[in-house]
Amino acid sequence: MDALVSLPDNRVIRQNGLASKTSLEGFLANFETYLVDRANYFDPAVRDLAVQALTSGGKRIRPALVHACGAGNLAVSENLTKAAAIVEFVHVATLVHDDVLDDASIRRDRQTVYADRGATAAILLGDALFAHALEMASEFPENEVCRWVAAATRRTCSGEIQQSFLRGDFTLTSARYRQIIEAKTAELFSVSCRLGTHVAGLDDATSALACDFGRRLGLAYQIYDDLADVFGREADFGKSLGRDLAHGKVTLPTITLFPKLSKVEASRLHETLFHSGREPNSEIVLEMVDLMRTHGVHEECRELLDEELSAIGNTLSEFTDDTIARHLDDLRQGIVSRTAILLG
Amino acid sequence: MDALVSLPDNRVIRQNGLASKTSLEGFLANFETYLVDRANYFDPAVRDLAVQALTSGGKRIRPALVHACGAGNLAVSENLTKAAAIVEFVHVATLVHDDVLDDASIRRDRQTVYADRGATAAILLGDALFAHALEMASEFPENEVCRWVAAATRRTCSGEIQQSFLRGDFTLTSARYRQIIEAKTAELFSVSCRLGTHVAGLDDATSALACDFGRRLGLAYQIYDDLADVFGREADFGKSLGRDLAHGKVTLPTITLFPKLSKVEASRLHETLFHSGREPNSEIVLEMVDLMRTHGVHEECRELLDEELSAIGNTLSEFTDDTIARHLDDLRQGIVSRTAILLG
Repeated sequence: MDALVSLPDNRVIRQNGLASKTSLEGFLANFETYLVDRANYFDPAVRDLAVQALTSGGKRIRPALVHACGAGNLAVSENLTKAAAIVEFVHVATLVHDDVLDDASIRRDRQTVYADRGATAAILLGDALFAHALEMASEFPENEVCRWVAAATRRTCSGEIQQSFLRGDFTLTSARYRQIIEAKTAELFSVSCRLGTHVAGLDDATSALACDFGRRLGLAYQIYDDLADVFGREADFGKSLGRDLAHGKVTLPTITLFPKLSKVEASRLHETLFHSGREPNSEIVLEMVDLMRTHGVHEECRELLDEELSAIGNTLSEFTDDTIARHLDDLRQGIVSRTAILLG
Repeated sequence: MDALVSLPDNRVIRQNGLASKTSLEGFLANFETYLVDRANYFDPAVRDLAVQALTSGGKRIRPALVHACGAGNLAVSENLTKAAAIVEFVHVATLVHDDVLDDASIRRDRQTVYADRGATAAILLGDALFAHALEMASEFPENEVCRWVAAATRRTCSGEIQQSFLRGDFTLTSARYRQIIEAKTAELFSVSCRLGTHVAGLDDATSALACDFGRRLGLAYQIYDDLADVFGREADFGKSLGRDLAHGKVTLPTITLFPKLSKVEASRLHETLFHSGREPNSEIVLEMVDLMRTHGVHEECRELLDEELSAIGNTLSEFTDDTIARHLDDLRQGIVSRTAILLG
């Protein structure tokens, strides 16, 4: 079904598949300008750091979710762009802090704020980005916007803390792993959908469906991201891979591998990762990746992710609004394609 | 002038100097319970960390400012306690992050979350505390509360970033130093007053006066705190002193000292602090404190702080509400007394 959509310049077009892509591209182009404008709220000394972190060429999946849930149903408004900026500010703040925690010097082919200006600047910049996300949220007259964003931010951090406390605990159940990535990643995906439907003034039922879709897409995306760390090639991702492995982070590939190993093998690996008195090196990381291939972790994870993405696709028929469903499916398809590239 | 005040149990008493103290004590006792209750919003793994950070025996100056501006004029309500919790959560979040930045193991005689659980836990806990402060703010129906708190938080971080970029730049003017501590410290003092008067429903003129008082008290407090780092005794403060000096932080004592030194002496000190290839040690810190005493930095700073505190006192006569003025003066007197203990 085609739908009427307003472009940023107020021309209304009849939207089909191609126009839908154009609509997202136009939205994101506008969004990039808005992000940089927002950095002007910071003092000059902080502004440049903020721009460096905000314009580092991210995939903008969360803003695209905001767009998917809101853009088919109203003229692309400043409020929709602002909603997208809110979730991206929160996301970028978590990345800036993650780079400190992971001692990461490169992200998306560019030097991180942490590597460039040190831990102090990176920690405080992350804080300032969080704060400004909430400032933008408070520009909406309804204080629900603040409440949703603040709660999602708290749960995101909470998921990260839990994951950090479980480092090296490769006996983690997959149910517990899902709980953690639900907090760490899916919350912000879900709130992106909530903000989109809220700005578009959609009914509660549609909003609940969209939030549920966002949450499940977030889970799938985090599983994909965990797999990319292990099976990806640096050239495709523009960041250091094997970081999760080297840090003993509990992710789907690691908790799938460890129960398959003999006790002797598992404890040797664990020992090498955590008790050797030195930093884990690329040798041990390569050995783990090899073991994963040998034990079919690759195929098992791929099957699970495929099932997840296909199940998410089935929920789209529940939407009465075809435009939203089509936009959301585009994003789901994006992860399907990337998974195919990653895992063959 | 006496005033009618409602206690938490709804008894109304006629307040005098002593009752005013009792009223604050009762408020703070209630506040401590509320803080811990609020930690229950966190997941179990995070809750204990949050309690550790929140109950580390701080002076609670910001909550006392909220009380001063609000309590004389209404029954102490949950909203006033919540407002106090908001500013304290933000403050504690900044302390938790500061401990990472300063590599500090002890604060208020207790081990820091950073020393106890590592940088990852401390950074993410700080983030979660910030987020929950904003969640509490969003429980107020008026979204101004979120806006004020988020903006003050952003400016607080911004002040800290600017100070960190100026490390070692002891040629800083005192005007620029004031700008920085205004952002870093005075913003949150000011917003504490704003929240207090807002919850109490006071008029705009009173609120503006209270915010201005808060801002100036924040400046004075930060100057006092900077002096304590240099001239205090650890036994009195329960934290490592000389930290600012060792980290080359630009504070009032350092920028007062350096212009008084010969070029040779200044560059030798600077060299020892920043270019010796090793961490600054207690020897160089003691030498700087000695130089400050020799060059009368102690007296000069004290004079400036005394003038500041006395000027702030003069603004109290502008309040038409004697109860607020008396409560605020109690807090000002607190800093006056501590300055006397610190500087003799």
